[in-house]
Amino acid sequence: MSTSFRVTPWEVEGLVNYDRLIKEFGTKPLTDELIEKTRELTKSDLPLFLRRRFFFSHRDYDLILRDYEEGRGFFLYTGRGPSGPMHIGHIIPFYMNRWFQEKFDVNLYIQITDDEKFIFKPDMKFRDAKMWAYDNILDIAAVGFDPSKTFIFQDSEYTKIYEMAVPISKKITFSTAKAVFGFNESSKIGMIFFPAIQAAPTFFERKRCLIPAAIDQDPYWRIQRDVAESLGYYKTAAIHGKFFPPLTGLSGKMSASMPETAIYLTDDPDTVRNKIWRFALTGGQATVKEQREKGGNPEKCVVFKWLEMFFEPDDEKLLQRYEDCKAGRILCGECKNYLIEKVQGFLKKHQRKRKIMEPVVKELKYTGKLAREMWDRSIPKELS
Amino acid sequence: MSTSFRVTPWEVEGLVNYDRLIKEFGTKPLTDELIEKTRELTKSDLPLFLRRRFFFSHRDYDLILRDYEEGRGFFLYTGRGPSGPMHIGHIIPFYMNRWFQEKFDVNLYIQITDDEKFIFKPDMKFRDAKMWAYDNILDIAAVGFDPSKTFIFQDSEYTKIYEMAVPISKKITFSTAKAVFGFNESSKIGMIFFPAIQAAPTFFERKRCLIPAAIDQDPYWRIQRDVAESLGYYKTAAIHGKFFPPLTGLSGKMSASMPETAIYLTDDPDTVRNKIWRFALTGGQATVKEQREKGGNPEKCVVFKWLEMFFEPDDEKLLQRYEDCKAGRILCGECKNYLIEKVQGFLKKHQRKRKIMEPVVKELKYTGKLAREMWDRSIPKELS
Repeated sequence: MSTSFRVTPWEVEGLVNYDRLIKEFGTKPLTDELIEKTRELTKSDLPLFLRRRFFFSHRDYDLILRDYEEGRGFFLYTGRGPSGPMHIGHIIPFYMNRWFQEKFDVNLYIQITDDEKFIFKPDMKFRDAKMWAYDNILDIAAVGFDPSKTFIFQDSEYTKIYEMAVPISKKITFSTAKAVFGFNESSKIGMIFFPAIQAAPTFFERKRCLIPAAIDQDPYWRIQRDVAESLGYYKTAAIHGKFFPPLTGLSGKMSASMPETAIYLTDDPDTVRNKIWRFALTGGQATVKEQREKGGNPEKCVVFKWLEMFFEPDDEKLLQRYEDCKAGRILCGECKNYLIEKVQGFLKKHQRKRKIMEPVVKELKYTGKLAREMWDRSIPKELS
Repeated sequence: MSTSFRVTPWEVEGLVNYDRLIKEFGTKPLTDELIEKTRELTKSDLPLFLRRRFFFSHRDYDLILRDYEEGRGFFLYTGRGPSGPMHIGHIIPFYMNRWFQEKFDVNLYIQITDDEKFIFKPDMKFRDAKMWAYDNILDIAAVGFDPSKTFIFQDSEYTKIYEMAVPISKKITFSTAKAVFGFNESSKIGMIFFPAIQAAPTFFERKRCLIPAAIDQDPYWRIQRDVAESLGYYKTAAIHGKFFPPLTGLSGKMSASMPETAIYLTDDPDTVRNKIWRFALTGGQATVKEQREKGGNPEKCVVFKWLEMFFEPDDEKLLQRYEDCKAGRILCGECKNYLIEKVQGFLKKHQRKRKIMEPVVKELKYTGKLAREMWDRSIPKELS
């Protein structure tokens, strides 16, 4: 296993050693006990994200479960930086959020950081970030959230967020922001301020906030946790996801700048077939004969990883496939075809839902119960 | 004359050498030609602010006059940081703005930076900055602006300003902000971002912006002028005022933390009399006899300065008083009494108007023609 990898909110490089990330980020592993406790409290079968440790690390998730158990409740917060079309790796964490919302019956806030993407991407126009915000929100809405308990907002539009970011921004020194995010003399002042904007939604309610998101966003929450209590709020909790690997290998994240590494939510069935067929890295042997004799390496296979992480919810079938591969009973082409069908099926359903999302987006952003409350409210007294 | 003085947006110390400020700030002196040209274009008698060079320096004021003459027009922008009650030195620049608005028939935007005051003052609560914003706006409204052409807004409320600050904040590096404002490692990230918020109103219209304000605010405009053209806008113009001196001497500014140095807009007639009588520094001699023989020093006299800068609009009377003082024909007590009456008269009128400002404030902030336009509009295409 490679020992050289790098994770910041802007880049994920190399083959990620998740155990080491837990140590480096100072988070805690998501234990069997916590997962079992989640099952008990929700009285539900666990989703594969938890069963298979797609979420593997956390901060204060134990306190979230305690707050829920003791009737204080909690709320969910997640987000998306709209820099381009969404791919499969982007949408998966939203399914985890949906599961949490459904099972715990809690509010969910989804921040679309068009300001961030515009400020951090040198060549991006503000209007393009806003256009992608619109586009991405259609995809997110298609996941299917409770419109009375979900609020999706774009920073450039829900500018009330600025009022709430101000008291947070009074608590964070340049030196802290620099240490956490690596800012320097040529960082733009908008970049330096942005951590306050991203932290603001954790103060939307007086309950504890749970953020299910990929672990690369954790530095933002570390800053929130430094200042929250001095503002009269809880430190936010987080549950950290792994990265959905690119088609081309198990290292790094899918990247919009390398379209062959990703399946986009807008890809048609032929494109899906071509991409998986041509680019997906498997753990197969060089020849059919060798594969039959030695068996494959599902641990090194992106096709198997995609099935494991999202596309094969049936544990028994997954295990069977693992053993068949190891034993040389199936060939890579068969697995690829299986994944192609699964992905095509998922996208067909997604694209059909996305088409009719416009009225739903209106509810989620403006007219739903939670959305209306958020547009009408003032900032909490504690922050004033 | 003292040679040690210091002017930043946060402090004014020592006896200010305005000629040297022009050199240090790299601005231009407001020439007789420009003042004469202003008279011609407005077909009006000049206000004492211009006749007596209370405004003494500028950036691109010549271009403002040219734009006006050639039919392109311009707009006005000024502001107030609501950190406490307003005193006479705070309100005077608003009279200059009113004159410009009346004579050139242009829009005026007044930014109330409750965010700034909260962020920069370690012990200030956000709610107190907002409370002072409300209070100060009553005073500002009492000056009497055209409600269809004036928009008063608080940053914490008109948070659309954030959307407009974002593209500006993408153009300013930490290193620039540091050089201009002296930020350091322990500066809060809200402070570092604030220059983008203060620059935003200069982009409210595609016309050239004229900012009549005290010269200590100039650093903000320098940053605006660095980035404006790359955003498709004009560099802002400015016309710089002197500081209204504290009662206690010609050095520095009036200060809210030394109440004896200032007359507040809420002071009652007795307080005015007491403060001027007890604290006003004059240029008189030690004894009546000496005063009669040698005459006084109006150049060193705060009472004379206050009359010159605001309270004696009649040039002839002012000159007569100057000569009478020099010749020993009047005593300091007489001048103090004269000023006391003038200030009491001004405050009586102001306080009467302030009392009935609530409906006017509503117009200026929300329902007037310009205010409605500003709440309804999107940010300009050029910034998107």
